[in-house]
Amino acid sequence: MEPQTPRIVIVGGGFAGLYAAQHLARQPVTVTLVDRKNHHTFQPLLYQVATAVLSPGEIAAPLRRILNRARNTEVILGEVTGFDTAARTVELAGLGEKTELPYDILIVAAGARHSYFGHDDWAADAPGLKTVEDAVAIRRRVLLAFELAERRAYLTGKRETPSFAVVGGGPTGVELAGAIADIARRAMARDFKAIDTTAARVTVYEGAPRVLGAYPESLSKSAEKQLRELGVTVRTDSIVSAVEPGRLQVGGEWIAADVILWATGVAASPLGKLLGAETDKAGRVKVAPDLSLPGHPEIFVLGDMAALVDAAGKVVPGLGAAATQEGVATARNIARDLAGKPRVPFTYRDKGSMATIGRHRAIAEIGRWHFTGTLAWLMWALIHVVLLIGFRNRLMVMSEWAWAYLTRERSARLITDLADDPQPPSQPPPQVP
Amino acid sequence: MEPQTPRIVIVGGGFAGLYAAQHLARQPVTVTLVDRKNHHTFQPLLYQVATAVLSPGEIAAPLRRILNRARNTEVILGEVTGFDTAARTVELAGLGEKTELPYDILIVAAGARHSYFGHDDWAADAPGLKTVEDAVAIRRRVLLAFELAERRAYLTGKRETPSFAVVGGGPTGVELAGAIADIARRAMARDFKAIDTTAARVTVYEGAPRVLGAYPESLSKSAEKQLRELGVTVRTDSIVSAVEPGRLQVGGEWIAADVILWATGVAASPLGKLLGAETDKAGRVKVAPDLSLPGHPEIFVLGDMAALVDAAGKVVPGLGAAATQEGVATARNIARDLAGKPRVPFTYRDKGSMATIGRHRAIAEIGRWHFTGTLAWLMWALIHVVLLIGFRNRLMVMSEWAWAYLTRERSARLITDLADDPQPPSQPPPQVP
Repeated sequence: MEPQTPRIVIVGGGFAGLYAAQHLARQPVTVTLVDRKNHHTFQPLLYQVATAVLSPGEIAAPLRRILNRARNTEVILGEVTGFDTAARTVELAGLGEKTELPYDILIVAAGARHSYFGHDDWAADAPGLKTVEDAVAIRRRVLLAFELAERRAYLTGKRETPSFAVVGGGPTGVELAGAIADIARRAMARDFKAIDTTAARVTVYEGAPRVLGAYPESLSKSAEKQLRELGVTVRTDSIVSAVEPGRLQVGGEWIAADVILWATGVAASPLGKLLGAETDKAGRVKVAPDLSLPGHPEIFVLGDMAALVDAAGKVVPGLGAAATQEGVATARNIARDLAGKPRVPFTYRDKGSMATIGRHRAIAEIGRWHFTGTLAWLMWALIHVVLLIGFRNRLMVMSEWAWAYLTRERSARLITDLADDPQPPSQPPPQVP
Repeated sequence: MEPQTPRIVIVGGGFAGLYAAQHLARQPVTVTLVDRKNHHTFQPLLYQVATAVLSPGEIAAPLRRILNRARNTEVILGEVTGFDTAARTVELAGLGEKTELPYDILIVAAGARHSYFGHDDWAADAPGLKTVEDAVAIRRRVLLAFELAERRAYLTGKRETPSFAVVGGGPTGVELAGAIADIARRAMARDFKAIDTTAARVTVYEGAPRVLGAYPESLSKSAEKQLRELGVTVRTDSIVSAVEPGRLQVGGEWIAADVILWATGVAASPLGKLLGAETDKAGRVKVAPDLSLPGHPEIFVLGDMAALVDAAGKVVPGLGAAATQEGVATARNIARDLAGKPRVPFTYRDKGSMATIGRHRAIAEIGRWHFTGTLAWLMWALIHVVLLIGFRNRLMVMSEWAWAYLTRERSARLITDLADDPQPPSQPPPQVP
């Protein structure tokens, strides 16, 4: 450590970066948090923005406001374009200026996006869900599909309800499919007169033999059953081999779908490679047990960017809970450095995981306990509201959910930036989420 | 009238079109409402979206939902590109299809935008405020200006607070300027550490000798005083003669401004000219006393698209209240046609008008009564909440205002679709608002 106050630069304001910053707020350090967005996004609820339940502002809060009481912390909007690990600087672009930001300790937690398995050109026809912009773009496509079908039916008499394909049967895929089936059956049904929105087809394509592969088999079975009750078709062992506008290829067969959504694969931020680090197939940095970059104790890599088998021998999963624990653990290891104590290796504590499927429908695994249906759904809602960042957002989300539950309406049904046809997202996938 | 049920096509889901549709819901007619957006926008509160007080979903509601109980009414998303007034059809583009929609009675109420007085190229550097997209684009520019200043101050030590120029001292200009000064002085102050946001300069440029020229002189004076108390500079008799990126020319002098906003001039929808009608300088259609197109009793032109001196000899103003009354009056005249009764000429009933300037600051004129300050502000808030479309939006907006009032925070401070530099709006001004 330098004799002066150590300068800590954190790249990324997701769970890992934000919790690290919060737990460094009372240490004798200065912290600079850099993010390409001005807000922290509560990713577990993004699918509710994509399906018009919540508004973007309800699941995202300005990083500057979340951290405004941390006197040693500055938030900077900008995009990291490189590192000089010898000179210990971060190269910043964005906002029309280029600058170097010096650090004594660097925390890189820039997250991951979905992977198209080498077919990035599919992104335009099958968008993924990682940012607020993604969610608004998906919402636009879903709502436009209903509008277009209604218009066609009214003007030409051809009554065709839209079809939706969700690629990937992990938590995001299951949640998106369930929520789309839900709005088609309830919220939309009263408002469309020329088409029967309840006839909308929603299909989940999962390459593995079951959905929610990270969960015990009994919960996967329950999730499939709950999806079917909502009218969702679940196709397992179904690998998508090609995507084109309006159709996808599954096992040699071309299937038409008005809206295709992508919810599989992991591609870590390219910043891992820019660090010169060894990465796995998904681009994740192979970190040391204390989450540092091997050979660089002053650099930590956290969250979805890090690949680690923890001190207990478990693979740390790419979940918000793990990222949060990594952020806190890293702040504590930095405090130990300052106190001259040895670092503690990271151990992931699995407090349980859950996925929601629809109204009164969810699954949850907490230790050895499994829950399904209404109980799992209530637990899911309670825990997600508690974890939401910001007292105000918590209140707003609770009142939105109460409204949606009581009226069966969906309130955030705006199509904005409406072009004549559904458009590909206006921006390439961001380098720094 | 045909012996079959008359087909009424309404173009535009603003105040005029929406109220016409609602008041035709129980008549023996079929109604088709066409809009380029899927939502009605409550324009009087757009400036609160532009200044991060409210979220887009709180001042806009899907037209389809507002009208879902009107069994004779269909809502179609699409863009009107022309009319055949001889064949009585509306030409529709949009959503990848082109169609003709037949009508027996046509109501055109496609609104207006700001006018750049022949300099439409200024729009990229000085955006106006008419749609939800405009509001989000302005919010992005305002918030980015603070972020860029903070970043520059932190990285280079140059402490410059952003400057804002608002062109036009009508209600929109006054409201925007007051709200920007308000967020700079309160909501932002705690969150920015390198710059002093309270030093942000906000200037209103008005070409006439006083702001709010449509109001009595005493209220203009009060508005100027209230703006000055908020730290806003008011420059009257100041005509803007040129706009370039980051600066504007006023009376031969070039003045730098980080953000320039346009709030003056009226350019009615070009659909008026496509009707083949006689229009005034602003493109407004000169309508008959019953709001019909001269020579075409089956075509009505309403709202900001219509120019009329009413039956009482008053110029009908381009206000939401007038558009609402015109929509209702036209629905009633159509009902009179059906009942074989003569039409009634339109008379505008002035129920008062008001503009808000900031917290506890507003002006109001109701008949011969003038109000300023806290009382006017409370009246403004009460009336605007009552007029908001939709019970749910009303509740949400009230709770947002209560939150903002009590905490002095602004909750909708998201920068979305963030590009490296402030970008011009991604879409040209829509033809059909």
